[in-house]
Amino acid sequence: MIAELVAVGTEILLGNIVNTNSAYLSEQMAQLGLSVYYETVVGDNHDRMKAVIASALDRSDVVILSGGLGPTEDDLTKEVCAEVMGLPLEEDPHSRKRIERYMKEYEKNHPDRRITTNNYKQAQVPKGALVIDNHNGTAPGLILEKDGKTAILLPGPPNELIPMFEESVFPYLRKKQPEIICSQVVKICGIGESQVAADIQDMIEAQTNPTLAPYAKTGEVHLRITAKGEDEKECKKLIKPVVRELKRRFGKNIFALEAEKTLEESVVDMLRDQGLTLALAESCTGGAIAARIVNVPGASQVFTHGFVTYSNRAKRKCLGVKKSTLKTEGAVSAKCAKEMAKGGCANSDADICLSITGLAGPDGGTKETPVGTVFMGCCYNGQTITREYHFTGNRTKIRQQAVASALVLLRECIMEGIEKND
Amino acid sequence: MIAELVAVGTEILLGNIVNTNSAYLSEQMAQLGLSVYYETVVGDNHDRMKAVIASALDRSDVVILSGGLGPTEDDLTKEVCAEVMGLPLEEDPHSRKRIERYMKEYEKNHPDRRITTNNYKQAQVPKGALVIDNHNGTAPGLILEKDGKTAILLPGPPNELIPMFEESVFPYLRKKQPEIICSQVVKICGIGESQVAADIQDMIEAQTNPTLAPYAKTGEVHLRITAKGEDEKECKKLIKPVVRELKRRFGKNIFALEAEKTLEESVVDMLRDQGLTLALAESCTGGAIAARIVNVPGASQVFTHGFVTYSNRAKRKCLGVKKSTLKTEGAVSAKCAKEMAKGGCANSDADICLSITGLAGPDGGTKETPVGTVFMGCCYNGQTITREYHFTGNRTKIRQQAVASALVLLRECIMEGIEKND
Repeated sequence: MIAELVAVGTEILLGNIVNTNSAYLSEQMAQLGLSVYYETVVGDNHDRMKAVIASALDRSDVVILSGGLGPTEDDLTKEVCAEVMGLPLEEDPHSRKRIERYMKEYEKNHPDRRITTNNYKQAQVPKGALVIDNHNGTAPGLILEKDGKTAILLPGPPNELIPMFEESVFPYLRKKQPEIICSQVVKICGIGESQVAADIQDMIEAQTNPTLAPYAKTGEVHLRITAKGEDEKECKKLIKPVVRELKRRFGKNIFALEAEKTLEESVVDMLRDQGLTLALAESCTGGAIAARIVNVPGASQVFTHGFVTYSNRAKRKCLGVKKSTLKTEGAVSAKCAKEMAKGGCANSDADICLSITGLAGPDGGTKETPVGTVFMGCCYNGQTITREYHFTGNRTKIRQQAVASALVLLRECIMEGIEKND
Repeated sequence: MIAELVAVGTEILLGNIVNTNSAYLSEQMAQLGLSVYYETVVGDNHDRMKAVIASALDRSDVVILSGGLGPTEDDLTKEVCAEVMGLPLEEDPHSRKRIERYMKEYEKNHPDRRITTNNYKQAQVPKGALVIDNHNGTAPGLILEKDGKTAILLPGPPNELIPMFEESVFPYLRKKQPEIICSQVVKICGIGESQVAADIQDMIEAQTNPTLAPYAKTGEVHLRITAKGEDEKECKKLIKPVVRELKRRFGKNIFALEAEKTLEESVVDMLRDQGLTLALAESCTGGAIAARIVNVPGASQVFTHGFVTYSNRAKRKCLGVKKSTLKTEGAVSAKCAKEMAKGGCANSDADICLSITGLAGPDGGTKETPVGTVFMGCCYNGQTITREYHFTGNRTKIRQQAVASALVLLRECIMEGIEKND
């Protein structure tokens, strides 16, 4: 089955907002085993929208339209789509009631604001439409079927679109597929994207069902295995040996087998499982590693202290880095990283402390210490190791890579302990 | 003049990567005063790409294609575009030389890797093409003109596309325009998006030249004024009274008049201008405010200490928050925020300390302190103020809003001083 995505909105064409819905929906289509050949963005203009919708319904089986379902006169998606499909509009009493309730609630919570738009326009639906309730706004979603073609209309705001897709559209499309699709993610860290691609090239070349696709993220590579089968059991049976083979190839570099699990979550889980507390001593990343750890709900159980010691004075005062170290080796040195990690443990009573100091640029680079040089230290069980990294790119890129590498190093130290004492 | 964007790449259709190029190019087109009616994504497939390019060149004056210029057989954009426009391919000696040099350099820096693809395919260009040098990769960009239509081909990676667009395509398109376009940004913080929209509605409704458009970001609203004129002088003359009027309406809430200037940069500039040093005491944001400040090159001059005190113990030990405060008022309280800010100043000798403590969820909310409750404190000149906020959304959303609001509060305190002592 072929699906096509159409995003409606002049604000996307003007670059006012980034079209993240298409990326989300593309990934969902891949998971459902639907092929997407075209994605289009069109403005809030009757004639152009009509041409785009007609051509999409002509060349694809399922067309997912997002945006343009609002209450203003500019919002035309429903009207144009109904026109193209030859379906008259009529009021849906269920939607009308929901909108009334939503507006009352809104006015109660926002006594200073008044709803001035004609929200009841949103209760008008094309004849025979399947209505999808919107729990986060007033525009209902719609599924229209005619002559073997399906149009699915969803509101543009991602916080409305995503829950509606998950709750109603995903199961609907899944049923339409003659076969069941299951997918499984295998998340890898500590190995570069090109290395992972090279390591699985034989598997990708030989693939039919299941398929294997890599998705690169900063410091991580996600592999998605997608199987088609008659039922879930058959799919799982097809996926299992691929996961086993990936485990054999990537071993400890696999940090998650669940789509929702993040690298920081796997680190927090490990700390919790082993009853360890964590401190962080950050210079060049300026708190960004701590912010990643705090992304994890419940991180407070394991993460106690973060020291953001951006100045030399703070490194000395908060972490006890020696004046002589800063003078002879400089702040961007293995010795400084080591003293930061040790001092972080000592001054926090945490079981493990990761430190980071480096040069993110754009200025300050020398021949010996070029921009992108980063030292990390990790103190655990009275031992401290240090690592040297060289990242490339601009300031932001260097810091993002440093944060990801720090989480990888932290994971490695917790998992394997620290043996080498330098 | 009408422009159209076509992104080529099966990886976008699969959702493997987000199509950020289109958002970037859309904003650039708006700045150039070009209208964009359609944006399309199509896969690496000859027939479908041919149909998309033909229809784009038919309905628009300028078509910007991104992606599909790589050295593999899948990369077809140049070949298909040349076919549609009826231009034969020939080798460009200049590009060939550049590719040879780039590959030699690459092999020198990566002795362990070998280039196996046929990069010389990238030196083939359609007859009469204007070649755009690529300083960050091997694929040159191309500008093709025929029968009053223009096709512009750029490589997909943003770190190649953006510099090439800025260096060559922007000036090229600017020349093509019969009139000069100038734009000016006015960045606002501390006022919500809907309030800003309401405050300028009369200006937007009355606009012809220049035009005024709002772009909402987390905690910020950017207004872009775009003027068309015979020369830069005329444009500036048109823009000036609009800026003056916006300054009159938004006053101190304007933090920048330059496109590149960030909110954190305006805070760091203010601190530097007034010779002040900054400390941060973060709980719920876990270092994310510090990370924003450290985004600014040279932040080390003003930002000395960051305390990430996620546990109560750390709040007591690093910031001297009283045990009784934590017991009676709790960590998420105005009193705790106040003691954190005071303690942050005392323990760092910084001139100003901003503190933040709150509940980002998803768990832990109570009727008195629901998820989204955030207290901030600011200690400056021996005075400390506190503020209470209530944010909505998920954990990430709450923390992003908290970070943005903290920067706004910090800016306000530096700018106006702290008068009220509570």
